[in-house]
Amino acid sequence: MSDIIVQKYGGTSVGSPEKIKNVAARIKTYHDRKLPVVVVVSAMGHTTDELIELAEKVNPNASKREMDMLLSTGEQISVSLLAMALEAINIPAQSFTGSQAKIFTDGNFSNAKISMIDRSRIDESLGKGRVVIVAGFQGIDKDENITTLGRGGSDTSAVAIAAALGAKECEIYTDVDGVYTADPNKVQGAKKHNQITYEEMLELASLGAGVLHSRSVELAMNYGVVIHVRSSFNQNPGTLVLSEEKLMEKIKVSGVTIKSEEARVTIPDVPDKPGIAADLFGKLSKSDIIVDVIVQSSPSQGRNTISFTIPRKAVGAAKSILEKFVSAHSTGKLDIDEHIAIVSAVGVGMKSHVGVAADMFQALADKSINIEMITTSEIKISCVIKEDQAKIALQAIHTAFGL
Amino acid sequence: MSDIIVQKYGGTSVGSPEKIKNVAARIKTYHDRKLPVVVVVSAMGHTTDELIELAEKVNPNASKREMDMLLSTGEQISVSLLAMALEAINIPAQSFTGSQAKIFTDGNFSNAKISMIDRSRIDESLGKGRVVIVAGFQGIDKDENITTLGRGGSDTSAVAIAAALGAKECEIYTDVDGVYTADPNKVQGAKKHNQITYEEMLELASLGAGVLHSRSVELAMNYGVVIHVRSSFNQNPGTLVLSEEKLMEKIKVSGVTIKSEEARVTIPDVPDKPGIAADLFGKLSKSDIIVDVIVQSSPSQGRNTISFTIPRKAVGAAKSILEKFVSAHSTGKLDIDEHIAIVSAVGVGMKSHVGVAADMFQALADKSINIEMITTSEIKISCVIKEDQAKIALQAIHTAFGL
Repeated sequence: MSDIIVQKYGGTSVGSPEKIKNVAARIKTYHDRKLPVVVVVSAMGHTTDELIELAEKVNPNASKREMDMLLSTGEQISVSLLAMALEAINIPAQSFTGSQAKIFTDGNFSNAKISMIDRSRIDESLGKGRVVIVAGFQGIDKDENITTLGRGGSDTSAVAIAAALGAKECEIYTDVDGVYTADPNKVQGAKKHNQITYEEMLELASLGAGVLHSRSVELAMNYGVVIHVRSSFNQNPGTLVLSEEKLMEKIKVSGVTIKSEEARVTIPDVPDKPGIAADLFGKLSKSDIIVDVIVQSSPSQGRNTISFTIPRKAVGAAKSILEKFVSAHSTGKLDIDEHIAIVSAVGVGMKSHVGVAADMFQALADKSINIEMITTSEIKISCVIKEDQAKIALQAIHTAFGL
Repeated sequence: MSDIIVQKYGGTSVGSPEKIKNVAARIKTYHDRKLPVVVVVSAMGHTTDELIELAEKVNPNASKREMDMLLSTGEQISVSLLAMALEAINIPAQSFTGSQAKIFTDGNFSNAKISMIDRSRIDESLGKGRVVIVAGFQGIDKDENITTLGRGGSDTSAVAIAAALGAKECEIYTDVDGVYTADPNKVQGAKKHNQITYEEMLELASLGAGVLHSRSVELAMNYGVVIHVRSSFNQNPGTLVLSEEKLMEKIKVSGVTIKSEEARVTIPDVPDKPGIAADLFGKLSKSDIIVDVIVQSSPSQGRNTISFTIPRKAVGAAKSILEKFVSAHSTGKLDIDEHIAIVSAVGVGMKSHVGVAADMFQALADKSINIEMITTSEIKISCVIKEDQAKIALQAIHTAFGL
């Protein structure tokens, strides 16, 4: 472990020349303390969206290779501007594309995985006392094609660089103060965590808490890199994302989230035999329909009921697949409810604290909220409820766990 | 010599999604004839200017390395979009940055010289039947830093690639039909050349005829690449720029140009001894003042008069240098005329046709235009005249040589 500081600034943090100068001033405070600093930067504000719009005017079905070539310019612009902003306050700095920083990936354009980082070029520049600024979100494959890591991939770039450099911590700067017990815009009294585990963060990220890119959390977990999520607009400490062993105190429930714009599908009376579920979900997957919660009740008289949720906007595309499946396998009637939401409580403490599920169900019952589906994992409990009750449910669960 | 087609499209030719599609359609006609095509592209329209403006908001004195990093994104955007436009009409295409196309340069940021092109990557892509699209204006130095070739450098990229690939011809697409005998906006009856020599083109380019980047012409001359200057907005043949040996007919005067916004400086009574001129022009050069025409009369009684032209906007910066020089060396008075223009006639035929200079002076005399300075080279005659007579002078010379 070295004392190298790795920081990542998101698109909102570098959204204008003025904000870029603010980021430079923040970096200066580290450089002044003689700390080696490596900074990963996303594209400015809406640059990526604008480039996508431009591409769509030329070819709405452009190849992923060419899209990556195009989109990677967004980060190249922001790294050079940030280097200039540092030069302007007399901090030596050097910007690097993913290719120059030797971030190697597989050839899976638009969703590439980092395979290796050769730290030699970064070390050389740090050795000359420079702040190293690396374009996030991008790398190169073995044929030197430019690849991108998918939306939010700059988080992954930053954690991968922190891992490659043996940095203790990776600071992820964003426009919120850290990770909260619930969305502060939706739940009164939502509080910021000082610490949270990788596992909890993963559950929260996939539930749409939306602070960190899931892959970056997995990577940090694999390499033991502590992620520090904090705001680039103030000096407050944020939330540390770390391993369970490093966690000071295990709290029962660390976060409550809600996922709306979902639909529930129920197919009754399906024969209980192997291959039925695989057939159904295989077909949905082939049509790029993302299934979230899946529940199958215990068979009764050789027949099952399968329920699951899909994004509401996918209902149209799913319908013909579902209808074919029902007419082939079920004697019952397809039931789709397009107005549901999924509320979830997440916490590593659940593993050692009993009664969390019961407390959650009681909190919902106290507000007369009917639970349509339930799924549980070791550190998560999710309930499907009516969408119009979602906000009350969220607040009730949040209060019940004393968050 | 191979049958590879090398084409370069300038910023106006790819200035919008619609224009990019037009370029793709033009490339298709070559691809359909089974010809291997390599296309060099500039940044879209005003992209480069917009990026410079953005940089200036962050740091008005940004390092050249970071400026090159920033500006090179302009071409990267246009090559990827052009590749997408070709994909849209089912032409396989692949875009490359200067780095990916292995265009190696020296490390002279913002004005780098191409040192070598390794054609392997281009050949590989051509071998797969793809149209190869290369970002103009850029390369990499030995440390993989991105470099740019200076304004208009995409012409140089295209000619260098044509030379590296042994292409017979390099088509430079622009927004004019070719090289004219004079600026058609200024001279009635200006005609397009079918052919012109490298030497004439060089004289015309440095005189501000502004169609081709001078360095690209020098490179073409060195490697015997024929440049075909033509419009991307029609199918007309343009102007071939080639060696004197290949020229079908040597015409006396091939072009007449005018350079305005210039100032004339005259320093009388300078001692005729070694080092005086070197001292003066060395100091001006160190202040980045570009001196064009220089005339020094034969010494009389050990004293000289030195006259030269500088851009009018440089007069302010030049004045203190000139005043110091005059008080140190001259007993005369510094004379600056800020309202002059330089008219020039260019043609390889001058070498074999006598009387060209006399005809030019007569044409000016017939219009009562006084000539303040004269310089001649083997293929060029330049006269400094009053700026308000420039337009009449241009037309008179153009007519006198029957252009």
